[in-house]
Amino acid sequence: MRRSAYFLPTLKENPSEAQIVSHRLMLRAGMIRQSSAGIYSWLPMGFRVLKKIEQIVREEQNRAGAQELLMPTIQPAELWKESGRYEDYGKEMLRIVDRHDRGMLYGPTNEEQITAIFRECVKSYRELPQILYHIQWKFRDEVRPRFGVMRGREFLMKDAYSFDLDAAGARRSYQRMFVSYMRTFARMGLKAIPMRADTGPIGGDLSHEFQILAETGESAVFIDRALLATDWAGREVDYSSDLSPLVDELTGHYAATDEKHDPAMEKTLGDRLLSARGIEVGHIFYFGTKYSKPMNAAVPGPDGTPVLVEMGSYGIGVSRLVGAIIEASHDDAGIIWPEPVAPFRVGLINLKPGDAKCDEACATLYRALADDVLYDDRDERAGVKFAEMDLIGLPWQVVVGPKGIAGGTVELKRRGAAGGREEMTLDAALAKLASTRPGRS
Amino acid sequence: MRRSAYFLPTLKENPSEAQIVSHRLMLRAGMIRQSSAGIYSWLPMGFRVLKKIEQIVREEQNRAGAQELLMPTIQPAELWKESGRYEDYGKEMLRIVDRHDRGMLYGPTNEEQITAIFRECVKSYRELPQILYHIQWKFRDEVRPRFGVMRGREFLMKDAYSFDLDAAGARRSYQRMFVSYMRTFARMGLKAIPMRADTGPIGGDLSHEFQILAETGESAVFIDRALLATDWAGREVDYSSDLSPLVDELTGHYAATDEKHDPAMEKTLGDRLLSARGIEVGHIFYFGTKYSKPMNAAVPGPDGTPVLVEMGSYGIGVSRLVGAIIEASHDDAGIIWPEPVAPFRVGLINLKPGDAKCDEACATLYRALADDVLYDDRDERAGVKFAEMDLIGLPWQVVVGPKGIAGGTVELKRRGAAGGREEMTLDAALAKLASTRPGRS
Repeated sequence: MRRSAYFLPTLKENPSEAQIVSHRLMLRAGMIRQSSAGIYSWLPMGFRVLKKIEQIVREEQNRAGAQELLMPTIQPAELWKESGRYEDYGKEMLRIVDRHDRGMLYGPTNEEQITAIFRECVKSYRELPQILYHIQWKFRDEVRPRFGVMRGREFLMKDAYSFDLDAAGARRSYQRMFVSYMRTFARMGLKAIPMRADTGPIGGDLSHEFQILAETGESAVFIDRALLATDWAGREVDYSSDLSPLVDELTGHYAATDEKHDPAMEKTLGDRLLSARGIEVGHIFYFGTKYSKPMNAAVPGPDGTPVLVEMGSYGIGVSRLVGAIIEASHDDAGIIWPEPVAPFRVGLINLKPGDAKCDEACATLYRALADDVLYDDRDERAGVKFAEMDLIGLPWQVVVGPKGIAGGTVELKRRGAAGGREEMTLDAALAKLASTRPGRS
Repeated sequence: MRRSAYFLPTLKENPSEAQIVSHRLMLRAGMIRQSSAGIYSWLPMGFRVLKKIEQIVREEQNRAGAQELLMPTIQPAELWKESGRYEDYGKEMLRIVDRHDRGMLYGPTNEEQITAIFRECVKSYRELPQILYHIQWKFRDEVRPRFGVMRGREFLMKDAYSFDLDAAGARRSYQRMFVSYMRTFARMGLKAIPMRADTGPIGGDLSHEFQILAETGESAVFIDRALLATDWAGREVDYSSDLSPLVDELTGHYAATDEKHDPAMEKTLGDRLLSARGIEVGHIFYFGTKYSKPMNAAVPGPDGTPVLVEMGSYGIGVSRLVGAIIEASHDDAGIIWPEPVAPFRVGLINLKPGDAKCDEACATLYRALADDVLYDDRDERAGVKFAEMDLIGLPWQVVVGPKGIAGGTVELKRRGAAGGREEMTLDAALAKLASTRPGRS
């Protein structure tokens, strides 16, 4: 994409309404614009990141055997009266009356709707287990929406639901999702820490939340450093095998948010205990028959007797992750995207558009890098281009200037703390970019 | 995907609520379930088709130089008061009051919202032209929702908006979208006919709608048969060239809906005039400054004077297309998917699961066909499997039975009128499937 044609309205000034760094940087980097309080439009660059995150989530859900469907945003109120949650949700639920005076609502979550689909469609225990998911916009009418996409009103979430015949099966489904969450976050370049969690309004008796570490995180967390040493990114998982050992390994180390923190662990773990701050990016629940019972979601079991299905639900905040990743990965100059979710992998800066040699070198790089590159071809000062490229945080920068080109070189820069710059030939730069390309796992 | 594990709740009986064939077949083929009147959940197979259509639309929008973003579903009422359309829309617009008593609405379309984004973000004529689009759920509170996804309340639409400095530029943007629509529908295996159209509530002075032919279509249409002879699927387009000759060629033949039909053409064209029925799948408008004027979307022109931008809007009914394609392509046995939008390309039927040779041949085919295949591995009667495979309408079927396998053959069947069945070796079947695979254009 050529910068001159790209719809990328970056801001030079810090927007006053943004209290946290991800909100500030997303506005400045032209990723989002506010439509109304807590509701955003995703501009092309923000949208690309959102889609990359969504796609990783999708691939890992599919790999774990979950099947994608899509439930609508608008649900009938009756469903929520069946489960008893219609009143529980209070003002956070956006209630709507349609032209025929029927009570509707903008779904804040989908346990009721998926349970209704299940009970209509599944007629035998032989069709179990099932894990169904969708990636859909949801709405929670927060009283004070803030922190940009981290706590918006309209937000994109992946929510999966599992259906099993008994508690042992439900636990297997829970483990599948647990493991797929570890893979999902690792593929985004994130270190997500699973922590035992309260079940909250969803209910149930087994729950974990997944926190990523960021200085600006909303929760205080306490972690055995041994957990951080685990490398998940390259790990293959056989979902048809017993996943208990893996889950036990990952939950065997101490990790807790402050509500669940046991102060005695400070003595037990000593220096191994890391006290940090975290952002919740996923939450999984096993809640048994909490919804299947009031909504009568049962299948005939092997002996013909109806069995209420055992359910779990599994959420990932897809739009929230965009902000969370920025909170976890930025510096004073701007965003530092992990490669797998970067809007473009490479930023190409032409220091002298109009100079035949610079233009030619850039044209060669632009062709070779194809969809991976944002090419700043504008007639702007070098300082403006450098600052903007750092702000938007693409993992690599290639700088083409008349001086370097005269000597046959370009500059390759890695964005971020591990960064650095190197002069090299154009071919060497392309070779280095090709050899460092992350594989699709 | 194995049929035994796939969430595919097909129905044997015709659902009584469905009045038209696409609605009936989508319910029977387990593609959708109704959530409330005019609102559907897309089950895994329906979702796959929806996504394939969406992806073709996206690729062709991008190819034409449009940039994807994503606006939220919930919009503030004030925006619509600025344009003056807040009252015009009447009860079809789903109006919402949030917890702070602010007037909101579920967007039925996005002219206001994109105009607001444009005026905030674009500061110079040098940033024009721009074509921005999104693919998002919309809501129209139809008084009598019916015909399944063809006239639902919550529906998925691609809507693009163009911004130009003058009328000549706006016409070029219009032509780009016109041509991209021809390519888009052709890639789906559809013959879409562009017809001059009324501009309706969107306003403006130049408009075309795109109709596909189906016996059950809602509109009577009259077409010069010469138009049908044009083959679009393989045609390359250079979007940087002048598209006028191409658009003139495509609009040079007579084509009109009954509201615009000129009876004199019956004499002029004689046998060349085809009278048929059509379904609207796209609609494009040029409306000048209809929104930019009341909303004051202007940029400083070359001489510094503010210029109101010239706009157009361009819609494709993505969820509607799923129904429209079925209306255009089915027989008594079920759906006949055009290959580019088929949920799976191949249905594999094992006539005798448990038979070692059948299982082995099926396993080989299943591996080779990967994501393209739905494998019916269930222990069901052959008749049930054949009927279901015809119902769901995958373009190819491979039937593996003990008799054929003993002689080293499987049966390859093409679904649809041009169909036919052939006995051949397993390798020959795979070779034929590979050689008939449509390329990604």
